[in-house]
Amino acid sequence: MNIDFGLGNTAEYQVALRAAMELGLAAKGTTSPNPPVGAVIVDSSGRVVGRGHTQPVGGPHAEIMALRSAGNTARGGLAVVTLEPCAHTGRTGPCTQALINAGVSQVVFLHSDPNPVASGGAKALQEAGIAVQQVQAPEGAEDALLPWLTATQLGWPHVTLKFAQTLDGFTAATDGTSQWITGETARNHVHEDRARRDAIIIGTGTALADNPSLTARYLDGRLREKQPRRVVIGTRDISAASKLHAAGYEQYGTIDQALSQLWDTGARDVLVEGGASLAYGFLKAGKVDAIQAYLAPVLLGEGRGVVSASLAGTLADAGRWRTAGVRHLGEDVLWLLAQS
Amino acid sequence: MNIDFGLGNTAEYQVALRAAMELGLAAKGTTSPNPPVGAVIVDSSGRVVGRGHTQPVGGPHAEIMALRSAGNTARGGLAVVTLEPCAHTGRTGPCTQALINAGVSQVVFLHSDPNPVASGGAKALQEAGIAVQQVQAPEGAEDALLPWLTATQLGWPHVTLKFAQTLDGFTAATDGTSQWITGETARNHVHEDRARRDAIIIGTGTALADNPSLTARYLDGRLREKQPRRVVIGTRDISAASKLHAAGYEQYGTIDQALSQLWDTGARDVLVEGGASLAYGFLKAGKVDAIQAYLAPVLLGEGRGVVSASLAGTLADAGRWRTAGVRHLGEDVLWLLAQS
Repeated sequence: MNIDFGLGNTAEYQVALRAAMELGLAAKGTTSPNPPVGAVIVDSSGRVVGRGHTQPVGGPHAEIMALRSAGNTARGGLAVVTLEPCAHTGRTGPCTQALINAGVSQVVFLHSDPNPVASGGAKALQEAGIAVQQVQAPEGAEDALLPWLTATQLGWPHVTLKFAQTLDGFTAATDGTSQWITGETARNHVHEDRARRDAIIIGTGTALADNPSLTARYLDGRLREKQPRRVVIGTRDISAASKLHAAGYEQYGTIDQALSQLWDTGARDVLVEGGASLAYGFLKAGKVDAIQAYLAPVLLGEGRGVVSASLAGTLADAGRWRTAGVRHLGEDVLWLLAQS
Repeated sequence: MNIDFGLGNTAEYQVALRAAMELGLAAKGTTSPNPPVGAVIVDSSGRVVGRGHTQPVGGPHAEIMALRSAGNTARGGLAVVTLEPCAHTGRTGPCTQALINAGVSQVVFLHSDPNPVASGGAKALQEAGIAVQQVQAPEGAEDALLPWLTATQLGWPHVTLKFAQTLDGFTAATDGTSQWITGETARNHVHEDRARRDAIIIGTGTALADNPSLTARYLDGRLREKQPRRVVIGTRDISAASKLHAAGYEQYGTIDQALSQLWDTGARDVLVEGGASLAYGFLKAGKVDAIQAYLAPVLLGEGRGVVSASLAGTLADAGRWRTAGVRHLGEDVLWLLAQS
């Protein structure tokens, strides 16, 4: 795409778009049920003069935060936002009006607002004489809004199935050992990712066998600032002596009960961490929107599989996913898959 | 690395080095027991004026081919070679003497020659007043010499274990279906890679069950110009009606017999394509130097594994590999692992 925003250099707009996406990512896990939006204000010389992201529920939206940090320098400038600015008055006033009032002359956004109540922002801006353009995400940039967009379209939380396995597909050796399949870089990524989700879900089997805390930690064991909700699915009792009891958790009998209750209480982006029976249940029910697989350069030959039972008896019946990204994490590989 | 070769621009030397590596890759599969070397001659203005790679046994080495294509323009120029020029007279005269005679003033090479008979090239060039420098491979460039270097050091063929599997580690569904786990891009890569190996090895079980031809083909079914040797390991008889019979093959009773005979007859770089029992045999014997895993974005839950039996009963006993590269091939992922 080769858009001239009157800045004389589209490289500056690319930098601004990536900065807005980074700001949205920083807010991920703190905004639900609102979307983790990032916004940047660029002045007419191409300099970034304002930055902001969605605040927790009841607080200002990303555009308002960015306009505040830009002050008067926003006049005549460009606003780059990861989501179409809202045109409705909810808990906060409409962002479109704030952009018009600030004298912004151009607005670029990544995603249209799928919420019919909040949409119409682009039209409202154009009617006020502001040049508006929707653009695509640059190659390789992580898009923090994808789970929220899917959830909003489904009316149901976006589910990511996460697991760590050996190259040959085992989450544990035959004797049950699984610490540590992946290295420190991958494990740190898991904890960073936990802090960016609304909830982490495991089955009672995993809760009873592994006694996990399901907290988001740093490598030295300290808790991260943001902690996701901890959710257990199944009917067996969790011991009062367990780490989950100490950390606090919710329990639901079935997948549908859990997702329905999570949606109603504001969760939009949840992570299923296992075990193999729960993974099977989510996959068989078609309730997995994305897969996040951490693969370690190890072959075991035998061990415990990722999924507890057969999903397809013949290759033609197996569901195909789309590769959304692959990257190194130390010696390990992180493979992101999305529904195709 | 920041080397000034008097060309006024090291970018030109980087281009030349990548070009030499590409030339070596083009020769891979056609040169054994000689190494697939690439060479480029750069004139004093930084222009590539000569290109060459190792010819089949008995033919000229890469430097000779590059010098021939450069002609008189080699005088005062730079030779970039992927392997230290040889100083001995074998089937062909020493390359060092040819470089000296051509009036080359500088030589850059990637790998030292591990062969004591052929080494000493750098010293011979320096004694003739030529500036010589060993450099490292640029990031991401495929190094065609690695298998040959390992084989020469071991006195034994370099073995790559190759398999195509689902994300969760299955090479076939429970009903045995395995065509096609991976997509066209990955399958084309498999055939291109076959043509670059000295031999492809399978077990009798796979030969009897799948009736493969083990040829290197294009996607439309046509045979590629270069075909690897086809090798079957095991004692069961292969049917005279099989595709392997039609294409021609060698059979050995054991892994050691096969590798020993392959080495003695000039093979340096061989590919083990399965099945699971042969993969187990090679891994258990410590005879795998590299793993080339094609992973498809599919979950089966159950199916046939990559390796037929347990390699380690507990995680701490499992061998760890090093990630040598990861990349997309269409929707699939190619993961290259090396011994750590």
